[in-house]
Amino acid sequence: MPQAAPIAAVAARLRSALPTGAVIDDPTQLATYDCDGLLHYRVSPALVVLAKSADDVQLAVRACVEHDVPFVARGSGTGLSGGALPHADGVLIVMSGFREIRAVSPRDQRAVVDPGVINLAVSQRTRPDGYYFAPDPSSQQICTIGGNVAENSGGAHCLKYGFTATHVLSAEVVTPDGERTMLGTTAPDAPGYDVLGAFVGSEGTLGIATEVTVRLLRNPQSVQTFLAGFADCNAAGAAVSAIIGAGIVPAAIEMMDALAIEAAEAAVSCNYPPGAGGVLVVELDGPEHEVEAELAAAEHHCREAGAFEIRVAANDTERQAIWRGRKSAFAAVGRISPDYIVQDGVIPRTALPEVLRQMGELAAERGVRVANVFHAGDGNLHPLVLFDEQVPGQGDAAEDASGAILDLCLAHGGSITGEHGVGSDKAKHMPKMFTEDDLDTMQLVRCAFDPQGISNPGKVFPTPRLCGEVPGKRKAAHPAQQAGLGEVF
Amino acid sequence: MPQAAPIAAVAARLRSALPTGAVIDDPTQLATYDCDGLLHYRVSPALVVLAKSADDVQLAVRACVEHDVPFVARGSGTGLSGGALPHADGVLIVMSGFREIRAVSPRDQRAVVDPGVINLAVSQRTRPDGYYFAPDPSSQQICTIGGNVAENSGGAHCLKYGFTATHVLSAEVVTPDGERTMLGTTAPDAPGYDVLGAFVGSEGTLGIATEVTVRLLRNPQSVQTFLAGFADCNAAGAAVSAIIGAGIVPAAIEMMDALAIEAAEAAVSCNYPPGAGGVLVVELDGPEHEVEAELAAAEHHCREAGAFEIRVAANDTERQAIWRGRKSAFAAVGRISPDYIVQDGVIPRTALPEVLRQMGELAAERGVRVANVFHAGDGNLHPLVLFDEQVPGQGDAAEDASGAILDLCLAHGGSITGEHGVGSDKAKHMPKMFTEDDLDTMQLVRCAFDPQGISNPGKVFPTPRLCGEVPGKRKAAHPAQQAGLGEVF
Repeated sequence: MPQAAPIAAVAARLRSALPTGAVIDDPTQLATYDCDGLLHYRVSPALVVLAKSADDVQLAVRACVEHDVPFVARGSGTGLSGGALPHADGVLIVMSGFREIRAVSPRDQRAVVDPGVINLAVSQRTRPDGYYFAPDPSSQQICTIGGNVAENSGGAHCLKYGFTATHVLSAEVVTPDGERTMLGTTAPDAPGYDVLGAFVGSEGTLGIATEVTVRLLRNPQSVQTFLAGFADCNAAGAAVSAIIGAGIVPAAIEMMDALAIEAAEAAVSCNYPPGAGGVLVVELDGPEHEVEAELAAAEHHCREAGAFEIRVAANDTERQAIWRGRKSAFAAVGRISPDYIVQDGVIPRTALPEVLRQMGELAAERGVRVANVFHAGDGNLHPLVLFDEQVPGQGDAAEDASGAILDLCLAHGGSITGEHGVGSDKAKHMPKMFTEDDLDTMQLVRCAFDPQGISNPGKVFPTPRLCGEVPGKRKAAHPAQQAGLGEVF
Repeated sequence: MPQAAPIAAVAARLRSALPTGAVIDDPTQLATYDCDGLLHYRVSPALVVLAKSADDVQLAVRACVEHDVPFVARGSGTGLSGGALPHADGVLIVMSGFREIRAVSPRDQRAVVDPGVINLAVSQRTRPDGYYFAPDPSSQQICTIGGNVAENSGGAHCLKYGFTATHVLSAEVVTPDGERTMLGTTAPDAPGYDVLGAFVGSEGTLGIATEVTVRLLRNPQSVQTFLAGFADCNAAGAAVSAIIGAGIVPAAIEMMDALAIEAAEAAVSCNYPPGAGGVLVVELDGPEHEVEAELAAAEHHCREAGAFEIRVAANDTERQAIWRGRKSAFAAVGRISPDYIVQDGVIPRTALPEVLRQMGELAAERGVRVANVFHAGDGNLHPLVLFDEQVPGQGDAAEDASGAILDLCLAHGGSITGEHGVGSDKAKHMPKMFTEDDLDTMQLVRCAFDPQGISNPGKVFPTPRLCGEVPGKRKAAHPAQQAGLGEVF
């Protein structure tokens, strides 16, 4: 691993080229960058660079390449898997000041933005022209497009519109060897390898996006939102299955269980149906006639599944009221529990009732409670494991329950993360989901782009390896990989 | 390049392990494999292997790796870009006998199939259960799923449902070094690199799929199809823009111009609206209420744009009659022209009128005619350049017009291929669409998977390179690529 000398050399190189204040090595200031949204991992970087342009990013990466120093890019630091956790001996490249919307072309349905542009800022800029950027992570008021690209971010409306990967047409990237290249193209149906597709969601391990061309969608002609109260989550889940099964693809179907409803009520008095053990928030959008027809059908399916109250928003104010409870739910959990862990897993929608039942059991066995708020349409669960750090053993019990929930998702053919990413937090779980062979194949790509292993090392992949060792069993056939290249990462 | 000895060694190895008749080296038999659907490139392979299993494929690839012999996989040979054109010194691995549907799981909306399974066979098998496989290339009665994966095949209904990449969940692959690995996962929203996304559409250059798990869609509750006749293609194009602009996403919108209509009438008497200079075939599918509302809106937009006749199919027989003209159009062109070239390009939908005008001009300048049949909704043109080989100079003029059409697509921000792939035919056009830097980045992936350059060499990429040279300017930073590895390809 790099020692003080390489970092000092990198610092000197960057100071000579960048404005005063853009390079930070004061320990107190460095400590303010010691985590992202996943607060319980903390590492201060050795150096921080405040990048304002692609040139700045390239300069920083090239200095790191030359001195074999690891680097990590960070947007707003809202990530929930420690993907932007700094490296103790490395450079943290802070992208949040690199944020101009470069061009908006409504006719071509695209915008060209800097990576530090705030997600919501894109739609705010384009909505008057009749367009918006679809991915809407719950942090969209503060998270950056560059971070969305790194994590392939989702959101409530990704059921209908897809994750970030669907909405990025091309990206200029500084690769881990310090080159600048364009991935993807704005031409429709381009040939060649879809390298952009592999880059989106690579969590900073294949380089840093320095310009992103995003797809804009037309504002829907009509939006209808309703809240449906059910006796329990099983009934609500049956409604979800019936709606999707009927071929309706709502813009969003969100579910909350009794504990999540209780938390939301305590925080924002959202006035959800009294006595509900499960609520659905269903949003439909599209051409007016289509939305009206779908609304009638979705209401019907909810009633058939046992909804005892359905409340359709009559206007935008009522729509926002319905969403307020859902959107506040995470923070609201603080009202009913001193501490909590937000988990993120995915299951096939059909496994919902069984998984919810078993999740309740495993939580009870460990003496903790689980509140559920989730994107029901695509089976993306966000269980909140509630505990009290002051009670001896509860912290460990909650950690244990949180891990067991992922195992439960996997046992039902699901995934260890829906939209929060692997980052630092879940790298250890990757071998539960992928064979060594699968991971070796991903390492082929990693080593092709980052033979030194300096681009966000330690994230995503579980086992530090020499690129020369990857993939071990392929050595005979891959002379390129016998040379013992690169650093451990 | 490999000489006779390596091929003889490969043949001996394969004969020792495979049943009689599975290894072919008789020149007359080899000649029957000398082209795919693009008839004007012809190369006989040095050896043919009829593979029936993943073991057979792996055996063949391993033998090729050991003796440094190129290999090419071939399904039904329906490709239109010479992607399955054999290598004169190489092995052609014929996959069409490797064709069992291994498992169908309607509840999970997926099926596991061998690569040699015929596209249409999947839907024939699953339709009674209420499901189908969406990608529908016009060759779907004969083309294979493995070929669809290699080419990321599209079809008339890909406007709404997306190309093959959207419908493949995972694939077992024999990589160019002879290993077997799984790309993708059936778990929703899986983390890690989307290597499967890069593999789909890689046209055989990253390995051979030996098992494919495809996504099944539910049969739509309702389908409505109509034919609209317009004075010319500009009016028809305006209707397309109005329909899409209104937020309606039809299952298909196909357009034919006067010459294509004439050809179809001559061949199958499809009784299209007399006097039409442009027709649209519009198909809407989904929940019944939604389709009814969309049908009314789409008809309205067509009339507003000047449709003088609209014929809605009252039943399945009438629907098939409407499609018959469209589907026969390519072959039908033989009725009005002794020879023709099928081109495949993409333009932004908004550029349609201008591109059609200029295409007419460039054809007239060269003394040839162009008939247009295309997927209007996504701007995927299939111009048919008509000529008579017997007339001196017409063959060259047609080739020249065909190339000029691609340049026209590129000048309007389009692509050199929509769904036929790059293959042998369009590799030379890749530098018009991608910078050397873009292509270098793709080569990073290529060399990671295929350092010997033996997997379908000569396809997709324009310039033969040593993997040790790729990417040239990155040498300093990528010690892995300095070793002078691999063969020219």
